[in-house]
Amino acid sequence: MNVVVTGFGAFSDQNDNPSGLLARALNGQRIGENTITGVVLPVATGQIGPALATALEGLRPRLVLGLGVAPGRMAPALERVAINVRDFPIPDTENAQVVDEPVIVDGPDAYLASLPLKAILAAWRAAGLPGYVSNTAGTYLCNQLFYLLSHQGRDGGFRAGFIHLPALPTPAAAPTPSMSLDVMEQAVRIAVDVATSHIGPDLPLESGALS
Amino acid sequence: MNVVVTGFGAFSDQNDNPSGLLARALNGQRIGENTITGVVLPVATGQIGPALATALEGLRPRLVLGLGVAPGRMAPALERVAINVRDFPIPDTENAQVVDEPVIVDGPDAYLASLPLKAILAAWRAAGLPGYVSNTAGTYLCNQLFYLLSHQGRDGGFRAGFIHLPALPTPAAAPTPSMSLDVMEQAVRIAVDVATSHIGPDLPLESGALS
Amino acid sequence: MNVVVTGFGAFSDQNDNPSGLLARALNGQRIGENTITGVVLPVATGQIGPALATALEGLRPRLVLGLGVAPGRMAPALERVAINVRDFPIPDTENAQVVDEPVIVDGPDAYLASLPLKAILAAWRAAGLPGYVSNTAGTYLCNQLFYLLSHQGRDGGFRAGFIHLPALPTPAAAPTPSMSLDVMEQAVRIAVDVATSHIGPDLPLESGALS
Amino acid sequence: MNVVVTGFGAFSDQNDNPSGLLARALNGQRIGENTITGVVLPVATGQIGPALATALEGLRPRLVLGLGVAPGRMAPALERVAINVRDFPIPDTENAQVVDEPVIVDGPDAYLASLPLKAILAAWRAAGLPGYVSNTAGTYLCNQLFYLLSHQGRDGGFRAGFIHLPALPTPAAAPTPSMSLDVMEQAVRIAVDVATSHIGPDLPLESGALS
Repeated sequence: MNVVVTGFGAFSDQNDNPSGLLARALNGQRIGENTITGVVLPVATGQIGPALATALEGLRPRLVLGLGVAPGRMAPALERVAINVRDFPIPDTENAQVVDEPVIVDGPDAYLASLPLKAILAAWRAAGLPGYVSNTAGTYLCNQLFYLLSHQGRDGGFRAGFIHLPALPTPAAAPTPSMSLDVMEQAVRIAVDVATSHIGPDLPLESGALS
Repeated sequence: MNVVVTGFGAFSDQNDNPSGLLARALNGQRIGENTITGVVLPVATGQIGPALATALEGLRPRLVLGLGVAPGRMAPALERVAINVRDFPIPDTENAQVVDEPVIVDGPDAYLASLPLKAILAAWRAAGLPGYVSNTAGTYLCNQLFYLLSHQGRDGGFRAGFIHLPALPTPAAAPTPSMSLDVMEQAVRIAVDVATSHIGPDLPLESGALS
Repeated sequence: MNVVVTGFGAFSDQNDNPSGLLARALNGQRIGENTITGVVLPVATGQIGPALATALEGLRPRLVLGLGVAPGRMAPALERVAINVRDFPIPDTENAQVVDEPVIVDGPDAYLASLPLKAILAAWRAAGLPGYVSNTAGTYLCNQLFYLLSHQGRDGGFRAGFIHLPALPTPAAAPTPSMSLDVMEQAVRIAVDVATSHIGPDLPLESGALS
Repeated sequence: MNVVVTGFGAFSDQNDNPSGLLARALNGQRIGENTITGVVLPVATGQIGPALATALEGLRPRLVLGLGVAPGRMAPALERVAINVRDFPIPDTENAQVVDEPVIVDGPDAYLASLPLKAILAAWRAAGLPGYVSNTAGTYLCNQLFYLLSHQGRDGGFRAGFIHLPALPTPAAAPTPSMSLDVMEQAVRIAVDVATSHIGPDLPLESGALS
């Protein structure tokens, strides 16, 4: 069964975006009975939709898990909600800085994640890993992708979720939280495993925390 | 024209909840052509709905602005979205600690604020006041109230918004951000003024940032 | 009896430096049996010493209390130690950016504050005010002044202390802690009162927290 | 040539104190021309001095580098100064909670680190590692040890320094910064290498940043 894990490419000071590195690292791996397709998406508001469509074509995934880096976050964060807002704090890589526009015109105001958030959190804890449930994925590209995934997953019969990651350990002018790639990979693998173990045959999926 | 400003009573270590103090202070005041009705709500998940119904009865407000304290916040925060989730980090004053339940069963996943957030922010800046747009009102009583207000406002023809406030300056074991009540009152008065100035006769209101 | 309270002028984005405003506001006031001389010092490493000498000339103060702003601090901070290091994170107003040089060549590595820190903290708490003891005054101009005051106070028979203040409430790109000037003035007045009440006739003073 | 690296044992919620784990891991290793003796010290104010004396006996180290964990720190922190103050925020493992007492009666107010802080920082950056210079080691056991090391090093002819480490990645109620042990070990190895490379035959050592 197919699971898609997306990451993002470089942007701003994130030359080594851990989300993209993880998507690449997980590509082709098996987690439980799932085969992972890893996809690296551009940090460009106009390109995410088409790139995602290309990536998902023919795969019929049961789960699409988006990953993104959020410098300043201290641990992997399971996002609870994607909102229908693009309000960019900085321009994207195509120099677009969208202000207060929807992700999808006339789309609902938000989608709750269709992942078992608390079950994933419990599995992280059992494995000795830090992490938490976050109530905002921001209003930048990560939220846009999460909203798109949720919107398409509702129609396309797959679960959609998003995990924000800390930055990798690198020199910084001021103290900054970071996390090693292997720890983050372990967290993502557990998330995929728990999320797919909780899926029964009874699609369509409900939204909400399914713990 | 009627505007309702709600605050909350004491809870946890917030014996002097600035949101309740402000609701009391603003009660009966005029802001522009509006008369303010200030209401103090209990920090109890089962009581908010009935208390709100009683408070709004017969008022036909054009705007209901919820206030709440969020210890740790550094400046007044205009909340962008209310989500259909109750997931309490601490029990309420009736000792109820709800986990992952909706505010309204079968309600939409979220409502975006029907306030002109950026226009209020611009007015704060023009007045020399700090403040920002927040993308999460949490999953406690504040979010519950904000969701209820948004839900009822959609039917009842009033705008709904929520502002999170810093705690008042008081002794604390560790350094904690705070703000004086007069500064917060000025911010709330400006918010009411801008929000009502932006309302035309053409209800029902759209959701979303209306800047 | 004379007490000197120093503040700093504008620098960086601190056009309204609350420490300078407070020094001006307190100038000429009486606190207990003390008359306050308020002095505004330049944020320039080469000018602090001469400006301080001019300010103290003929005053024979019993206490010199330095004030400075530290944007990001959440509450007034009683500094515990001044170190013999200048290592500027940003240039001063004369464009000098000193790296790893002493304040006074061959001076001791540090001076502990000669204020009753815990007694001041207790008085703040009794008055309902936030505040804390800080273990670093940084390595910029504030620390330089605090070290100079401590060094001169040892010889000149006056107590020396330093309080770091939050920034004033003003618009900022990101949420930032702040505090109103009247709250900070109250904290400084209490500090002066407690510090001078604890001084007996038995100079020279010992260093260290005298609570 | 001998280098001693000390860590601490378990205390509070730090069951796996990374400083103790690193001291154990480095024990017996060679770094450049140095042989490391790793020592785990108890988190007990009355036992540090004797334990340290036992550990250093007969070794005649050229460098003693203390390590300690500081939960909440985001990256390894090179401490600049040890102060002659014990003011414990929590009791030690023997239930002693010292308030405002010196580390050494009649000792100087503080000692600056006798490590080339900026050179170590530069080497960390060259290796792609995060880290920063910290201006306070607190007033708990870490500072006590750092002060003791500095005091004895002045007489005993060895350099003394201290590095504060983030906590290891473990589950936590709230998001908390952390760092993997292997990243921290790399940082400590580099610190030892740079600190000993900078030592010439011309002891006694000066204090201060020697970059």
